[in-house]
Amino acid sequence: MTVKFGLLGAGRIGKVHAKAVTGDAGAQLVAVADAFPAAAQAIADQYGCEVRSIEAILAAKDIDAVVICTPTDTHADLIEQFVKAGKAVFCEKPIDLSLARVKACLEVVRANKGTLMVGFNRRFDPHFKAVRAEIDKGTIGTPEMVVITSRDPGAPPVDYIKRSGGIFRDMTIHDFDMARFLLGEEITEVVATAAVLVDPAIGKAGDFDSVQVMLKTKSGRQAMISNSRRATYGYDQRIEVHGSLGAVSAENQRPVSIEVATAAGYTRPPLHDFFMTRYTEAYAAEIATFIAALSGKGKAEPSGEDGLIALALADAAVKSVAEGRVVKMSEIL
Amino acid sequence: MTVKFGLLGAGRIGKVHAKAVTGDAGAQLVAVADAFPAAAQAIADQYGCEVRSIEAILAAKDIDAVVICTPTDTHADLIEQFVKAGKAVFCEKPIDLSLARVKACLEVVRANKGTLMVGFNRRFDPHFKAVRAEIDKGTIGTPEMVVITSRDPGAPPVDYIKRSGGIFRDMTIHDFDMARFLLGEEITEVVATAAVLVDPAIGKAGDFDSVQVMLKTKSGRQAMISNSRRATYGYDQRIEVHGSLGAVSAENQRPVSIEVATAAGYTRPPLHDFFMTRYTEAYAAEIATFIAALSGKGKAEPSGEDGLIALALADAAVKSVAEGRVVKMSEIL
Amino acid sequence: MTVKFGLLGAGRIGKVHAKAVTGDAGAQLVAVADAFPAAAQAIADQYGCEVRSIEAILAAKDIDAVVICTPTDTHADLIEQFVKAGKAVFCEKPIDLSLARVKACLEVVRANKGTLMVGFNRRFDPHFKAVRAEIDKGTIGTPEMVVITSRDPGAPPVDYIKRSGGIFRDMTIHDFDMARFLLGEEITEVVATAAVLVDPAIGKAGDFDSVQVMLKTKSGRQAMISNSRRATYGYDQRIEVHGSLGAVSAENQRPVSIEVATAAGYTRPPLHDFFMTRYTEAYAAEIATFIAALSGKGKAEPSGEDGLIALALADAAVKSVAEGRVVKMSEIL
Amino acid sequence: MTVKFGLLGAGRIGKVHAKAVTGDAGAQLVAVADAFPAAAQAIADQYGCEVRSIEAILAAKDIDAVVICTPTDTHADLIEQFVKAGKAVFCEKPIDLSLARVKACLEVVRANKGTLMVGFNRRFDPHFKAVRAEIDKGTIGTPEMVVITSRDPGAPPVDYIKRSGGIFRDMTIHDFDMARFLLGEEITEVVATAAVLVDPAIGKAGDFDSVQVMLKTKSGRQAMISNSRRATYGYDQRIEVHGSLGAVSAENQRPVSIEVATAAGYTRPPLHDFFMTRYTEAYAAEIATFIAALSGKGKAEPSGEDGLIALALADAAVKSVAEGRVVKMSEIL
Repeated sequence: MTVKFGLLGAGRIGKVHAKAVTGDAGAQLVAVADAFPAAAQAIADQYGCEVRSIEAILAAKDIDAVVICTPTDTHADLIEQFVKAGKAVFCEKPIDLSLARVKACLEVVRANKGTLMVGFNRRFDPHFKAVRAEIDKGTIGTPEMVVITSRDPGAPPVDYIKRSGGIFRDMTIHDFDMARFLLGEEITEVVATAAVLVDPAIGKAGDFDSVQVMLKTKSGRQAMISNSRRATYGYDQRIEVHGSLGAVSAENQRPVSIEVATAAGYTRPPLHDFFMTRYTEAYAAEIATFIAALSGKGKAEPSGEDGLIALALADAAVKSVAEGRVVKMSEIL
Repeated sequence: MTVKFGLLGAGRIGKVHAKAVTGDAGAQLVAVADAFPAAAQAIADQYGCEVRSIEAILAAKDIDAVVICTPTDTHADLIEQFVKAGKAVFCEKPIDLSLARVKACLEVVRANKGTLMVGFNRRFDPHFKAVRAEIDKGTIGTPEMVVITSRDPGAPPVDYIKRSGGIFRDMTIHDFDMARFLLGEEITEVVATAAVLVDPAIGKAGDFDSVQVMLKTKSGRQAMISNSRRATYGYDQRIEVHGSLGAVSAENQRPVSIEVATAAGYTRPPLHDFFMTRYTEAYAAEIATFIAALSGKGKAEPSGEDGLIALALADAAVKSVAEGRVVKMSEIL
Repeated sequence: MTVKFGLLGAGRIGKVHAKAVTGDAGAQLVAVADAFPAAAQAIADQYGCEVRSIEAILAAKDIDAVVICTPTDTHADLIEQFVKAGKAVFCEKPIDLSLARVKACLEVVRANKGTLMVGFNRRFDPHFKAVRAEIDKGTIGTPEMVVITSRDPGAPPVDYIKRSGGIFRDMTIHDFDMARFLLGEEITEVVATAAVLVDPAIGKAGDFDSVQVMLKTKSGRQAMISNSRRATYGYDQRIEVHGSLGAVSAENQRPVSIEVATAAGYTRPPLHDFFMTRYTEAYAAEIATFIAALSGKGKAEPSGEDGLIALALADAAVKSVAEGRVVKMSEIL
Repeated sequence: MTVKFGLLGAGRIGKVHAKAVTGDAGAQLVAVADAFPAAAQAIADQYGCEVRSIEAILAAKDIDAVVICTPTDTHADLIEQFVKAGKAVFCEKPIDLSLARVKACLEVVRANKGTLMVGFNRRFDPHFKAVRAEIDKGTIGTPEMVVITSRDPGAPPVDYIKRSGGIFRDMTIHDFDMARFLLGEEITEVVATAAVLVDPAIGKAGDFDSVQVMLKTKSGRQAMISNSRRATYGYDQRIEVHGSLGAVSAENQRPVSIEVATAAGYTRPPLHDFFMTRYTEAYAAEIATFIAALSGKGKAEPSGEDGLIALALADAAVKSVAEGRVVKMSEIL
C-alpha cells in the first residue's frame, strides 16, 4: 500500500517533509498547497507533484494523509477540517498556543476517530532514540534523574519571539516532551527560573532567553532542563538519564569529527549551527514512522495528547516563574 | 618561615591532612590530638611528631596553626578557642549545622581578628580550578548558566545520615559552594525538589537521597545541581559553565584511562569510587593554600563567611522543599 | 546543464551510485546495464530510467557519462571503449590488477583526451576531507608522520580473496591513496610486513590478512599503515597526521553516539559494521564531484594516474614482503 | 623488613628515585653519592640521609640495594661492582650503549647470582599497565597488531644527541620494550625508516629525529612505532593493541582535563610537556616493585635481559635503516 500525501505549507519545514515523503518507498506526494504559489510550485517541480489549494486537497479522493506545516495559528483549524474529511494528519508542533484550543481540537479528533501525529522530531533522533532504547532494555534500571541541555546558537528575531508564545512554549516544549519520553512516568510538578541575559529586546517583548526547569513525577523521578537562546559553540543538544543501575547519555553532534592538536591544545570543530542539519535524520524518521503507522506498522506517536501535555508543562513553567513556586500539573490540566 | 601545625583529629580525613602538612616545605607538623590515643600515635609514628591533648596544643607556644578534623559538633567551639588563643585555624566543613551557631562563631573570629579557612576542597581540584581560571580569563564571557552534577557511588549508613544535617547540608553544600565559586555573583534565590529513590530508610530518617536545586543571582545568572546518593558507575563529579562567549567544563576523573573495544562496544573503566581518591590533589592543594596564606602569599579562602553562605543556601533548599516555592536568600541570612 | 548518465553494473555498489546520480540536481540517470537483467530492471523501476545493453549505452547520443561498477576484469576494456566513444568515465577502483594493463589503458585515455575519474571514495569522506583541509590551511605546518589504521569487521570469502589481487591491491590500496592524499609529496620507498593471523584459508590462497606498511617520500615524510581483515568492534578507519606545527586526526564513526555507564564502565556502541554505511556520504560526494567537474566546476580527481600510483604502491608492498627489503618506487614505475 | 638503599647519582632522575624510595614504607634511604657534593647534599638534607662516596656505599654493611642514576657510561661497571658486593641493583636504562658490553655485564650478574632490575618505567604507568592487564585477562584474545605513538615535545640539545647512541637506542628503546611487553612473544624481525625533519643539526650529528619501525614475531604478530623528536601539542604517548577478540588502548594524559567551547570549537589543553610529569606515577611504581621484589613479593622485572633485548632491537633498527632491509634478530643476538 502506498500512502498518498498532501503537503500543506511549502516553507522551510515543508521542504524538509516533502523530501522525507518522496524519499519513502511507502508514500507518494500527490499535491502541495501554499499561500505563496511560487513556493508550492518549486516543490511541485522538484518532486513531480501537483499544486492544489488547501480546499482541493481537503476534497481530494486521491489523498490519504496530510502534513501540516502552515503557520501555527492555522494548525488547530486544519487538523479539525482534515480529520473530519477522513484524512490522517501529521501536524508540526505546536497544535496551538492555547491549551483550551488544543483540548477542543483533540475532542474533534477523538469524535471523528481521527489519526493525529505531532511533530516532536527529537524523539526520532537516532542518538536520543538509542538512549530511550537502553532505558527500555533495562540497562540503567529505573530512570531517576534526567538532565537535558538545550541551547540555540542564536536568538530568533524579536518579531518571531512575539508570536512564539514565549520560550517555554516555543523552545522548552521540545525538552518537556523529551523529559516525558525519558522519565517513563507522568510529570506532576513543575518549577522554573528565568532571566533575560542574551538580548534586552526579548525582555521588552515579555519573554525570557535563559531559563531552567525542574520536573518531578509522582514516584519522585526528577528532571532538569537548561535552556539558552545563545551558544557560540553551536546547537547544544544533550540528554542524560541517571538510573538505579547506571546512566545513559547522548553527546552533541557536529558536522565533522576531526581533532586538531597544536600548542594551543586539542580542538574539535563547533557543533551543528542549525536545527535542520542537526536533526536531518530525525525529520526523515518521524515521517517514516507516520507512513508506517498508516500502513499498519507501529503507532502514529507522539500523539495529539502528547502535544497537549507538553503545552501544559510549558504553561505550568510560565505560571511557576510568575508566582515563584512549584506548580502542580493538576492545577493546569 | 615554617608554619608549625597541630592536628586535631586523627581519623580518615585527619590522615589526609597530616600527609598534606608534612609534604609541604613551608610547614611542620608538631603535634596531633585525638580522643583515641592509638589513632594519634599512628600519625605521630609515621610523621615523627608528638601526641598531645587538645588543651596542650591550645596552650602550646610552638604551634602557629591547627587543622580541625574532629566531629562536626565540636568545630565551632574549637574554632572559638583556638582563635582566642591566637592560632590560625583550618576547619573541615561544616563549621556547624546550625546557622545561628555559625554566625556566633564567626562573630568571635571577627572580634579576635582570627584567621579561619574552611575546607571546601573542591575549589582546589586542578580541573575545577582550571574551569574557574578560564572564567577569570574571560574566555567564556559572562557566566550565565552553571550545571553541576554530583553523585556519590553509594549512600552512607543511615546512622551517618541522621547526624548529617540532611543531604542539602551534608552533600549539596559542596555544590552550593562550587556554584558560588563559578557564578561570580551572590545567589539570591533557591528552589529545590527532592525524593527518596535509593533507600527507603533514608526517607524514614527524614532525609532525601535524590535532589535537584536551581539557583539564581541578582542579575539573572542561574545554576542547576543534580545530586544522587547512588551511582553504580562511580563518583560522578562534573561541572559546566555556559557564558556569553562560550562554555567551559570539567570532565569526570577515573583511576586509569584505557579503552577496551570488543563486539560489545568501546568501554572505559568506571570513575573513582571514593571522594578521597577523586580529590587527592585537592586536599593537598587546599592545605598548601592555607600554609602559603599564613606565610603572606595569597588568602586563606574559602573563609568562614563562605562556609556560612553555603550553609544558608542549604537551609534555603530545605525550606524550599518544605514549602514548594522559591526561597529568597534575604529570608535566610 | 544536466549531465546524462549511463550506469554499467547494477550490483551493490551500482545501487549506491544510482542513488547518488539521481539525487544530484545536476545529473540525470538515463540508462542502466547489467549482465543480470533483473538487477538492472530493479534500478530502472526505482529511478525511472531505461534498461539498455552496454553496447546501446556506448552508442547512445543521450548519454554523456558512465559510471563503471562491473567486475574488475572488465574495467580497463570498458574505460577504453567509452573514452573512445567520447563519454566521460567514472570507474570503480581498481582500473585493473595488472600495472601494465593500467598503463596501457591510461595511454588510450590520454590519446583520446578522455576524462577518467577513479573511485577512491575515502578522499570524499567529510571527516578525512576536513583533515586534508586543515593541512592545506597550514594548521599543522609541514606534514611529517602519517598513521593510518584500517581494519575490516571481517574477512571476505576466500573465493573473493582469490580474485582480489591480494590484500595490498584490494584493501591497502585505499590507504596508499589516502597516504598520498595526506603526505602532499610523492612516495619513493615502500616496505611491508605481512602475516596470516585471521584465517589459515587466506594463507592457503596465497594471501595475508594482517599487514603493516611504511612509506617514505623524497624529503623524508613518512607514513605507517596497519591493516587487519578482522575487527570485532567494527569498521576501524582512522587517520592522523603529525606535522611541524601540530597534528590533525579523524576519529572513528559509529551509527549512534550514546554512552552507557554502569558498574562495568562507560560504553559507547561499536563502530559501523559495513563500509557502505561508514562511507555513505563519501559515495554521494565523489559522484557529486564528478558531475560538477563535467559541468566545469573543479577537477575529476582522483584521476587514472592516481589509480595507477596506488596500484604501483601495492605492487611494491608485495615485492617488499617477498624480498624482505625496502622497495624503491623507481623499481616499479 | 626494610630495604636499605644507597642512591648513586643525585641529578634530575636521582631526585625522582629519592622521593620514591623515601615514600615507600618498605624502604629507607641511607646514603646518596654524587660527583657534585652539593647535589648529593641537597637530597641528604631533604630526606635526612647521609652523603657518602660510591666506594663507601659499595663497602657499607647497612646498605642492601642501590639505585644507579649516574651517567650511562658508568652503568655497566657499577652494576658489576655492586652485584659482586652482594647488593641488589636497580639501574636506569640503558645498561650500556654497546651490546657486547651489556652481554659481558649480564654475565657477571649471572655468575654472582645478582639481582638487576632495569628502569623501563613505562611498564609501570598505570594506564599502560592496565592495557597489559586486559591482554592478560584475555579480553582482546591473542594480540595481533600493536601501534605505539611516541613523540617528544622537543628535541634535546645536539650535545646530548651525540652521546645518546642515536634515536633508536635513546628514545625508541622505550617503545621496543613496550612492544615486547604487549606482544607477548619474542620479536624476530625489525625494519625501520628514518629521516631528519626537525633539526638539520641532528642529521649532522649522524642521527635522525623522525623514525618509524615495524616489528614482527615468529607467529606473525606485528607492531608499528612512530617517533618524532617534536610535538607542539605535548608529550604524545599512546599505545593500542588489536587482537583476535577486540582491542585495548591507552589515551594521552594531560595535567588538567577541562574543555573550552567557543565559536572556534571545543578545546582541551595540551598534553604534559615533560616525561617526568607524564610518568610521575610510573617512577614511583617501578621503585615500589623493586622494593617489593627484594622483600619477596613479585619479581624484579624488567630484568637485565629485558634491557639487553631492547638494545638489540635498537641495533637491528640502526642496521635496517643502513641497509634498507628487514633485519632478523638472529643476526644481532
